[in-house]
Amino acid sequence: MTAALTRREHDLLGDRDVPADAYWGIHTLRATENFAITGTPISAYPHLIDALAAVKEAAALANEELGLLAPEKAAAIVAACREIRAGDLHDQFVVDVVQGGAGTSTNMNANEVVANRALELLGHDRGQYRHLHPNEDVNLGQSTNDVYPTAVKIATVFAVRGLLKAMAVLQDAFARKAVEFRDVLKMGRTQLQDAVPMTLGQEFSAYAVMLDEDRSRLAEAVELIHEINLGATAIGTGLNAPAGYAEAARRRLSEITGLPLVTAANLVEATQDCGAFVQMSGVLKRIAVKLSKSCNDLRLLSSGPRAGLGEINLPPVQAGSSIMPGKVNPVIPEVVNQVAFEVIGNDVAITMAAEAGQLQLNAFEPIILHSLSESITHLRNACVTLAERCVAGITANTDKLRATVENSIGLVTALNPHIGYAAATDIAKEALTTGRGVAELVLEKGLLPAATLADLLRPEIVAGNGAPTV
Amino acid sequence: MTAALTRREHDLLGDRDVPADAYWGIHTLRATENFAITGTPISAYPHLIDALAAVKEAAALANEELGLLAPEKAAAIVAACREIRAGDLHDQFVVDVVQGGAGTSTNMNANEVVANRALELLGHDRGQYRHLHPNEDVNLGQSTNDVYPTAVKIATVFAVRGLLKAMAVLQDAFARKAVEFRDVLKMGRTQLQDAVPMTLGQEFSAYAVMLDEDRSRLAEAVELIHEINLGATAIGTGLNAPAGYAEAARRRLSEITGLPLVTAANLVEATQDCGAFVQMSGVLKRIAVKLSKSCNDLRLLSSGPRAGLGEINLPPVQAGSSIMPGKVNPVIPEVVNQVAFEVIGNDVAITMAAEAGQLQLNAFEPIILHSLSESITHLRNACVTLAERCVAGITANTDKLRATVENSIGLVTALNPHIGYAAATDIAKEALTTGRGVAELVLEKGLLPAATLADLLRPEIVAGNGAPTV
Amino acid sequence: MTAALTRREHDLLGDRDVPADAYWGIHTLRATENFAITGTPISAYPHLIDALAAVKEAAALANEELGLLAPEKAAAIVAACREIRAGDLHDQFVVDVVQGGAGTSTNMNANEVVANRALELLGHDRGQYRHLHPNEDVNLGQSTNDVYPTAVKIATVFAVRGLLKAMAVLQDAFARKAVEFRDVLKMGRTQLQDAVPMTLGQEFSAYAVMLDEDRSRLAEAVELIHEINLGATAIGTGLNAPAGYAEAARRRLSEITGLPLVTAANLVEATQDCGAFVQMSGVLKRIAVKLSKSCNDLRLLSSGPRAGLGEINLPPVQAGSSIMPGKVNPVIPEVVNQVAFEVIGNDVAITMAAEAGQLQLNAFEPIILHSLSESITHLRNACVTLAERCVAGITANTDKLRATVENSIGLVTALNPHIGYAAATDIAKEALTTGRGVAELVLEKGLLPAATLADLLRPEIVAGNGAPTV
Amino acid sequence: MTAALTRREHDLLGDRDVPADAYWGIHTLRATENFAITGTPISAYPHLIDALAAVKEAAALANEELGLLAPEKAAAIVAACREIRAGDLHDQFVVDVVQGGAGTSTNMNANEVVANRALELLGHDRGQYRHLHPNEDVNLGQSTNDVYPTAVKIATVFAVRGLLKAMAVLQDAFARKAVEFRDVLKMGRTQLQDAVPMTLGQEFSAYAVMLDEDRSRLAEAVELIHEINLGATAIGTGLNAPAGYAEAARRRLSEITGLPLVTAANLVEATQDCGAFVQMSGVLKRIAVKLSKSCNDLRLLSSGPRAGLGEINLPPVQAGSSIMPGKVNPVIPEVVNQVAFEVIGNDVAITMAAEAGQLQLNAFEPIILHSLSESITHLRNACVTLAERCVAGITANTDKLRATVENSIGLVTALNPHIGYAAATDIAKEALTTGRGVAELVLEKGLLPAATLADLLRPEIVAGNGAPTV
Repeated sequence: MTAALTRREHDLLGDRDVPADAYWGIHTLRATENFAITGTPISAYPHLIDALAAVKEAAALANEELGLLAPEKAAAIVAACREIRAGDLHDQFVVDVVQGGAGTSTNMNANEVVANRALELLGHDRGQYRHLHPNEDVNLGQSTNDVYPTAVKIATVFAVRGLLKAMAVLQDAFARKAVEFRDVLKMGRTQLQDAVPMTLGQEFSAYAVMLDEDRSRLAEAVELIHEINLGATAIGTGLNAPAGYAEAARRRLSEITGLPLVTAANLVEATQDCGAFVQMSGVLKRIAVKLSKSCNDLRLLSSGPRAGLGEINLPPVQAGSSIMPGKVNPVIPEVVNQVAFEVIGNDVAITMAAEAGQLQLNAFEPIILHSLSESITHLRNACVTLAERCVAGITANTDKLRATVENSIGLVTALNPHIGYAAATDIAKEALTTGRGVAELVLEKGLLPAATLADLLRPEIVAGNGAPTV
Repeated sequence: MTAALTRREHDLLGDRDVPADAYWGIHTLRATENFAITGTPISAYPHLIDALAAVKEAAALANEELGLLAPEKAAAIVAACREIRAGDLHDQFVVDVVQGGAGTSTNMNANEVVANRALELLGHDRGQYRHLHPNEDVNLGQSTNDVYPTAVKIATVFAVRGLLKAMAVLQDAFARKAVEFRDVLKMGRTQLQDAVPMTLGQEFSAYAVMLDEDRSRLAEAVELIHEINLGATAIGTGLNAPAGYAEAARRRLSEITGLPLVTAANLVEATQDCGAFVQMSGVLKRIAVKLSKSCNDLRLLSSGPRAGLGEINLPPVQAGSSIMPGKVNPVIPEVVNQVAFEVIGNDVAITMAAEAGQLQLNAFEPIILHSLSESITHLRNACVTLAERCVAGITANTDKLRATVENSIGLVTALNPHIGYAAATDIAKEALTTGRGVAELVLEKGLLPAATLADLLRPEIVAGNGAPTV
Repeated sequence: MTAALTRREHDLLGDRDVPADAYWGIHTLRATENFAITGTPISAYPHLIDALAAVKEAAALANEELGLLAPEKAAAIVAACREIRAGDLHDQFVVDVVQGGAGTSTNMNANEVVANRALELLGHDRGQYRHLHPNEDVNLGQSTNDVYPTAVKIATVFAVRGLLKAMAVLQDAFARKAVEFRDVLKMGRTQLQDAVPMTLGQEFSAYAVMLDEDRSRLAEAVELIHEINLGATAIGTGLNAPAGYAEAARRRLSEITGLPLVTAANLVEATQDCGAFVQMSGVLKRIAVKLSKSCNDLRLLSSGPRAGLGEINLPPVQAGSSIMPGKVNPVIPEVVNQVAFEVIGNDVAITMAAEAGQLQLNAFEPIILHSLSESITHLRNACVTLAERCVAGITANTDKLRATVENSIGLVTALNPHIGYAAATDIAKEALTTGRGVAELVLEKGLLPAATLADLLRPEIVAGNGAPTV
Repeated sequence: MTAALTRREHDLLGDRDVPADAYWGIHTLRATENFAITGTPISAYPHLIDALAAVKEAAALANEELGLLAPEKAAAIVAACREIRAGDLHDQFVVDVVQGGAGTSTNMNANEVVANRALELLGHDRGQYRHLHPNEDVNLGQSTNDVYPTAVKIATVFAVRGLLKAMAVLQDAFARKAVEFRDVLKMGRTQLQDAVPMTLGQEFSAYAVMLDEDRSRLAEAVELIHEINLGATAIGTGLNAPAGYAEAARRRLSEITGLPLVTAANLVEATQDCGAFVQMSGVLKRIAVKLSKSCNDLRLLSSGPRAGLGEINLPPVQAGSSIMPGKVNPVIPEVVNQVAFEVIGNDVAITMAAEAGQLQLNAFEPIILHSLSESITHLRNACVTLAERCVAGITANTDKLRATVENSIGLVTALNPHIGYAAATDIAKEALTTGRGVAELVLEKGLLPAATLADLLRPEIVAGNGAPTV
């Protein structure tokens, strides 16, 4: 005699058989059938799974504290949640990440997995919900409408922490290059036209400063994500959640996650609001814009080797072409550009989803979760990749850069105060006519002693009034 | 003595060990290390893998035909490509779909897998490239810059065919409902305000017609995708590809794929151009907009059951809430809305990637491939899901709908020509003041015989001047 | 003898005649010829003109303070700038708002107008630049690359102040309605399906709270706009601006504008950075999303009069239809929706412009100015319009709303704890089968005394655990 | 005794005084008060005003033909419409372009202006609507919901014709340069890295071909705009429009406009559908993407003069900087880039507006009109500006370009078949080590006779296998 391969479960639509060894149940089964869209299960979002388990654990503890849940049930639920947060059972979170229903299927999947694991821990078989029920016990005092956004926020906070670290790594890589290149003179450009001299250190310093600012903005945006609506239940009136529940659940969840969570002052508003996600995505888009601009610059500055600007060299990381031997391409900045385009597109998707919310709820949070997670994760990977596989190995063509400065007409602007406007204009004209360099002409005509000219081209002078050279 | 676990390969950056049992080689290895961005390998895009194999097969046959490739080498390459197109070896396509380098890593991955499988078929060990080389033989006369966009186009054509079929399924589902509801009277609405009567059949017919038009537009857009640049090599000048190669390769590729491919008239332009992808994405966005509008309508018309419009009923497919027993939500339209938002976001990503192309090439085609594939596949899944799990099971609340028409002030507009403007105005005023229905008042006052009124409310009259009722 | 109709001016491209009575000169003339794009002159952006004048005035005072500009020249420039800031001469700012050159033409237009008016004040004819020169005097120590972004930021700060006020007006209108409707019971809805009871006051309160949060975010974003790069000159190295100039100019500009401006710590970064504009636009987009959602709700709640939800009435502001007499449409929310769509589109334009910056400068700031100004101004107008022409006059259909609650199946959820789960389920079933109301059945069956039922439906109970009813 | 300054008019909201000399009336008055959003009246869209007049004229003729409108009334309406189409009375179209109500205010403004002018022509005073009524006569058989989209489509067709012409001008400018530069050798680049030789003619030819393709796509998209819904009235059922009206009105409108208009097969669908506008905007976005890419290239190729690529020279059109004398910037391409960003942003606004349509109507067509008009007009201006002020005057630095080719390592790829792979590799290595040129080394080592080398570098050889050099 063999063990049954399935067990029968029941919901308002009728009976269905689920695999006997599945921790998920009938609601999850129906959801997997209903939503065959992306093929990506929510288990691909481990921060979300951990956050769901944390919410379920916090709710169980709050319910126990308020006398609504028997201690042995609470203990079993808590133990199941801790296993999940330790990384177990993630493979049981099988519903498609893009789903209708404002995250109901994700919440149901979590309720069922927690309940069945808790049942096992209590010595029961899976599916024996009369002993411990996914909805009546695991979901007690909760609604998808407060559980899901709370879990998404916690998952986002942890994901953003990873991004902040990756941005710091990239900022550091740029800053090191800024120091390394502090004495490398080059022509600055505006509108791609030669402008006035600067140092290569200043150029790289700007990238580091951009990242520093972006990190500040991201840290501010993630603060807003700490406001949760747990205790709101269906629409924010807290129906079916007793007095004290919201506060107890928030306290427990803060302890479990280590995050300084706060409960929204107006839960009706908080339950329908996606503003914090739109704001977060807007900041991610800002980061993407800056990263893309920096990568555009790196590709431009390293263009060549002979028919381009050829100012810097990116480290070769793979062969560039099968047909043109020896060609090496800026593939790392290129992949970062592409991530930036994706993040900017995701921002539009998130914007539309947020705008489409109606009355007391936004039913479209699953696509917000998906898009936001993708943006954060890919940006993190892009920052680390750019730092380690590109920026850290960049070298400068110092001599060529200096020669370009000495040759540039733009140098005249800098010499103006020292040789006079009339002489400067004459030099500029002669340089243009003959194709010769400005520095060469100035020295030849004895307009400045070589030492003085050299002095004017010292990096610390070029870099500006008291400004750091990097 | 045991078999070696790795084999050593060499490229311009030096030596690396690759797993002995891998069909991919050193270029693929480096690419997997360089691009750890999305975690999604190109094997997740089976249409692309098949298309790459088709291109490699066509090129080998063309090269053999032109006497550039020995018949036995060509035969081995062709055999390897056919295995891939039969579904084998897909797991060997391991590079990340989002990658720098305009698809070079994807092309190299294909070259290496084909070469190593061909080597095996020739009786050699993997990695013995002196017998058959990934670049010199498999990639002969090709460049990533013509291979990759050609493969992306072929993959897109096949993916779009799937979408066209799914749209036809959905159109048919709407059309069936249009017939079913041809005699169901209802109030039409403009700006969400009661307007004039129509039939529910007409409402559903509009959705079917929308899809029919969208299918026409999509079919037109996919025509443009049949123009390829194979033979262009690096920048469109056809360097290193002999006279006749482009035409032979195109002919072979058309035979293999069964597609009426044409070679672009200006290969320099074709090699840098992403216009056909932008156009395709624009049409996908149009489809998404319409689908989303239709789903918004379905959700609105089925709102209730008591505090909403309650005109139609969507079939329940899963429980809607754990906290509100019996609640059933429009989860299928909701998931389609989310796919639409994603497609609209992807269109922005594709737009930015296309705009970022520079000079003779667009280096950002990988994100275009990724976004386009996602849009097409998710739209296809959404259409089938909407047809089968929602539209097919929709029912109408016929009596309620008719009562609303008879009760509506808007009915006056229709009765105007029959009872006169003055009487119509009086009826409207009384209906507004008393809250009573227009039909009831008209009959009570003897303004129209019951039979005449019934006649005016016959669906074929309401539906309009000779217009079909559906 | 008549006065000359033109005067001749000269630049590096040669001579041109400008109208004798124009305060602008040759650079402006060429710009108007070069940029015939939108037909909208910069005079349509009065905040920008005032800000440009403030910058020119501050620079003149700083230059005088540092001994670089003769006191009488400085005085004339200052006087001209003050006239402009008083609203005079705005019609002389004629260049197209969308222009190439990173704002050079706007800066040149300002330099020429200020110079020619200052010349007049000094007793000279317009065009007599040897006495006071647009570039050498008015633009002394400046570059378009620090003047233009500084002026755009100041203009943005003042525009945003107007928006903040308008948002407060709208918030107040919603808050008043929240109080007015505090005792109006209604069914809350999730996913457009009947959920659980709430008060209409809570619904309007949510809109007020949304606006309050958005105002906070906007106030934070505008803080970032106070960081300027005046003194950076061409690329941030401060070339040609003496030590002390940046600080003096900033101090003067703060005094003139009354704004707590700060100079960016890294001027090279600040000169190429558009991050603060992207962030600002992201917050405007957030506001647009929320406003649009609120207007979607208002249109939905006021749908009808007979075939819709009919919960609230928007004040009629114009006839809705020529063909359907008496029809009144929600035209005010509809126009606000459209502004929201425009703002969301503008955000994409701003994002692309910011991403397109290269090396030491972003040449595309004019389209950023244009889009940002449009977004801010239209949102301001939309908020005031919505408050005054719609929200202030909204009324509730209180009786209908209460009847819907009493009739709703969702009421069972609220009665559950009082009549027991079994009885509640029976009532729900009977209500569904018979179409009768839940409250009616509960009373008929004596499950609750009328007084108790009434008590459970008191607004303060329905509104939730200690939550305000609004 | 003086004439009255105002006249009193009446609508369902009550009485209002309008200026006695206004051709518009009370509906227009209320609309100007309700919609103070952009400050841009619809008179700024002359194509729209003309199209509205054409629709009103066609409707009057159809109504007369069907015996619904007295000949003298029809004649007066037709005469008034013709005056408008001749350019008169445009200043009477005063409602804000962005308005709620699906264009009702625009339609009402047109009805009132036509009626009052017709009244004058009939010898009556303005406002004497008992003789000829804006709604009952001018709007007879019509609804905003068929008039407005029909007028928008006709306006769009004419605007697009202007754009098509401008694109042809730009295409021609590029094509002329392609011929002029047919013998100019240069290095092609992929991923900004030196690739293989090509001609500058080929580079410019690609821009011309892009425009040619885009024109084809635009011509296809505008075909779809010829399908109108006149005769649909409120929701597509044709209520209140007699049999034959739709066809008669279409025929008259085709005659008046000279356009091959067709009536949509399904008027219910056509009345709610914005797909053709979304498609049109998608094609405009495609054009914007390509234009922007071309301008990015022009700015890159003309970068310098000494620290950039310096391959071509854009004609100077204005001084580039006040602080850096002699600097000339690529301001024309820059302004075109900005128009492209605007068009791409507008596409998102149009997409959102189209998606927001509900049930039988899209209420958001005014923002679609506004955005679409802006995109078309600005693109047209951008194309003409780019052609005339930039492309036509471009010159090439032929010697420098050839020197770069001879110096480039990439040349080895081309010489490979002629000197052998081993020699080619040696030459490449020596060139890289010594910094010397490939051509120079090949000649020095006697690997090729000078004549042969020169032959291999002939433009027609470099340009490719039988490909045109342009």
